[in-house]
Amino acid sequence: MQRTLIAETVKYADEKVQVCGWVSSRRDHGGIVFLDLRDRSGLLQIVATPELAKNVKDEYVLKIEGTVQKRPVRMVNPELASGSVELQAEKIEILAEAEAPNINLKDLNVSLPVLLDYRPLTLRNKKIKSIFFIKEEIISVFRQTLKNSGFSEFQAPIIVPANAEGGAEVFRLDYYGRNAYLAQSPQLYKQILVGVFERVFTITKVFRAEPSVTTRHLSEYVSMDAEMGFIDSWEDLMDTCETVIKEIFSAVGEKFAKELKIFGATVPLVGQKIPRLKLKEAQEIIFQRTKRDNRKENDLEPEDEREICQYAKEKYGSDLIFITHFPTVKRPFYTFADPQDPKFTLSFDLLCRGLEIITGGQRINDYQSLLKNIKKWKLKAKDFKFYLQTFKYGLPPEGGFAIGAERLTKQILGLENVREASLFPRDMIRIDQRLSQSKPKKKK
Amino acid sequence: MQRTLIAETVKYADEKVQVCGWVSSRRDHGGIVFLDLRDRSGLLQIVATPELAKNVKDEYVLKIEGTVQKRPVRMVNPELASGSVELQAEKIEILAEAEAPNINLKDLNVSLPVLLDYRPLTLRNKKIKSIFFIKEEIISVFRQTLKNSGFSEFQAPIIVPANAEGGAEVFRLDYYGRNAYLAQSPQLYKQILVGVFERVFTITKVFRAEPSVTTRHLSEYVSMDAEMGFIDSWEDLMDTCETVIKEIFSAVGEKFAKELKIFGATVPLVGQKIPRLKLKEAQEIIFQRTKRDNRKENDLEPEDEREICQYAKEKYGSDLIFITHFPTVKRPFYTFADPQDPKFTLSFDLLCRGLEIITGGQRINDYQSLLKNIKKWKLKAKDFKFYLQTFKYGLPPEGGFAIGAERLTKQILGLENVREASLFPRDMIRIDQRLSQSKPKKKK
Repeated sequence: MQRTLIAETVKYADEKVQVCGWVSSRRDHGGIVFLDLRDRSGLLQIVATPELAKNVKDEYVLKIEGTVQKRPVRMVNPELASGSVELQAEKIEILAEAEAPNINLKDLNVSLPVLLDYRPLTLRNKKIKSIFFIKEEIISVFRQTLKNSGFSEFQAPIIVPANAEGGAEVFRLDYYGRNAYLAQSPQLYKQILVGVFERVFTITKVFRAEPSVTTRHLSEYVSMDAEMGFIDSWEDLMDTCETVIKEIFSAVGEKFAKELKIFGATVPLVGQKIPRLKLKEAQEIIFQRTKRDNRKENDLEPEDEREICQYAKEKYGSDLIFITHFPTVKRPFYTFADPQDPKFTLSFDLLCRGLEIITGGQRINDYQSLLKNIKKWKLKAKDFKFYLQTFKYGLPPEGGFAIGAERLTKQILGLENVREASLFPRDMIRIDQRLSQSKPKKKK
Repeated sequence: MQRTLIAETVKYADEKVQVCGWVSSRRDHGGIVFLDLRDRSGLLQIVATPELAKNVKDEYVLKIEGTVQKRPVRMVNPELASGSVELQAEKIEILAEAEAPNINLKDLNVSLPVLLDYRPLTLRNKKIKSIFFIKEEIISVFRQTLKNSGFSEFQAPIIVPANAEGGAEVFRLDYYGRNAYLAQSPQLYKQILVGVFERVFTITKVFRAEPSVTTRHLSEYVSMDAEMGFIDSWEDLMDTCETVIKEIFSAVGEKFAKELKIFGATVPLVGQKIPRLKLKEAQEIIFQRTKRDNRKENDLEPEDEREICQYAKEKYGSDLIFITHFPTVKRPFYTFADPQDPKFTLSFDLLCRGLEIITGGQRINDYQSLLKNIKKWKLKAKDFKFYLQTFKYGLPPEGGFAIGAERLTKQILGLENVREASLFPRDMIRIDQRLSQSKPKKKK
């Protein structure tokens, strides 16, 4: 007999089917046992005799044959796709036994560390699982939107030769007795490939040896990275960002209305056009509103990000705002300076509900200017020999952006911690399990 | 004026358009200059005056305005999508200059090391570039076929806590002063997620510290990894493999007929069903055919793989063959032993044209059996505490497989070396550039 998915059982009233899944709960009512059976498509009520359901416990994996029966109207559960039927069990086979979970999976009320310590179990909770269906959708829409616009997808390298951009937050690797590093970004490879495919994107892991534990940083995260050549202006980049982000919000809003409701969340509001402010303008507005004077700073502090988002919400009814023209000294060597005021760059961050979720900008595409900048940034041209071919042999005006997948998921759902949006978050105190508190051991 | 892609110019005969791209070649014929302009969609002949084309050289990046003109029938180039038209240039703007390439990009006749040393340049060659369009298609069809079968996609962790499976070919990482490692496979995470989503796949980077340079190994490669629960039999896994691989061949054959021709390649032949042979049977056949006696070995040598594929071709007209039932001692601790003969496992390799491209099998899903095996393999249960939750709390019968994306691309196109199918191959002597031959330097 072929397996029927639980969501499909409604089509088979009065027919015999076989269903498979995990026992979400067992309730004994006198001579009847009710089981909630969970598979990837939904939840189904099983009605069994005590004899049939003998030995069956929570999280047991079962194969059940039985007859689908319509439930009386007053018993229909409108929350479930299969809430209008139940299965009268005729045969129950135990595919796998399970220990009694030490956590209540239905009413998951545990701290974040416990949630993560028991990730293989806690991911089975419906609400937790839905975070990852939504993240999958976000990534899928990013991919499809760019493919539809002529972008090619590639898989960016993880192992990189030198800590080329400088910066301390890089993981070092023993590479056949040499030093190599984990990529902090696919930036240089995206640019190389603009010289080949014009428009490229990659959905790749990037790595930051963050020296502290915050609610917004991960040591390993998913970067959705795009880069496009033949731009007429750096504003093309923000326009592409806007298109992608609107497509994502619209798809998530449509397909996950029920899940959003469970989180008490709504997709972020975007008007006709996302407002765009220069950093200096934003700092002035923040100063006017709060009297907090960060007008000389090169970036926004977390509380500034929240404040300027509040302003965008009040003034434009927008949950998002672009902050542009970050100072040249604050950005990497390849960032394109504003010809009208080279102390600032044609770069941008996109903030969403108080948190930066995208960073991007135009890049230098002229070989000689890039060489000059490498020197100015006190880097060595020989470390960039491979990359520099791209410019030596002609590259059009171009730029790109990177979206943090976990941060975007967090901001859409209103999660408290970015770790909740990572299946297996890594940070300085955790890889799957918590790392031991004792003095770190290093062996060759 | 909006840019028109070169492939679209045929729609605009006698109209004015703007095109952008790289100069693939320049030919001066008396008072006329012919330029071949290359963009992501194709190649277009530009006709210009010497005055307009002044200073223009190979690989310069141009923006050109002009009028599209139909070419006389005898001048039509049937090889090009835009071969029936040319552009009479009226305005040429140089977007970026380029040095004269030191390699002939059109007739790329260089050794593999040189091809890779100049990757940012040599990728611009049409034939080389098409390898990656085909690889992108392979990955895309893998994804779509599994999505259509109810699989969820996830992004597997790269940083893993311990070298849990043993094995020397693992890269060690300095993780906040501790040891961590680069994933050799997403295996354990796939299994954890079968407990959550039932059917999962990931397209992820995996890492092998291969101690030698061969034509079939990379230190970093793309693994297309799938895992599915609620299998009725391990043959379900081979059936799913077969479906995926047939979809890939069919899509590549249809969409890339021209490119396959350039490589002198055809997609591998698959009959109604891919033949399946036990390792022992294959070894016997090889012995009968060659008198080479490897019947006591636990795996096939490269020359055995080629021989048995030759046999499959002759006997079944198939370029592919499954080899099954590898010895238990040769496979990892989680592999499911054949209940009928536990010295062998319910595992398989798929060979294509003489090379293993897929490996897979059923896994142990019973908690107690798994614990026993961990001991038997002389591993430590405490290193698997996180993973073991999956089984402790109930996992259905399951298994999966992994396809090497570069190997599959290589075998379809008949490439000589797997490096040709990696944009930026890493091995013990190369990360982008060749690593210096001098004694490796390690600094903290």
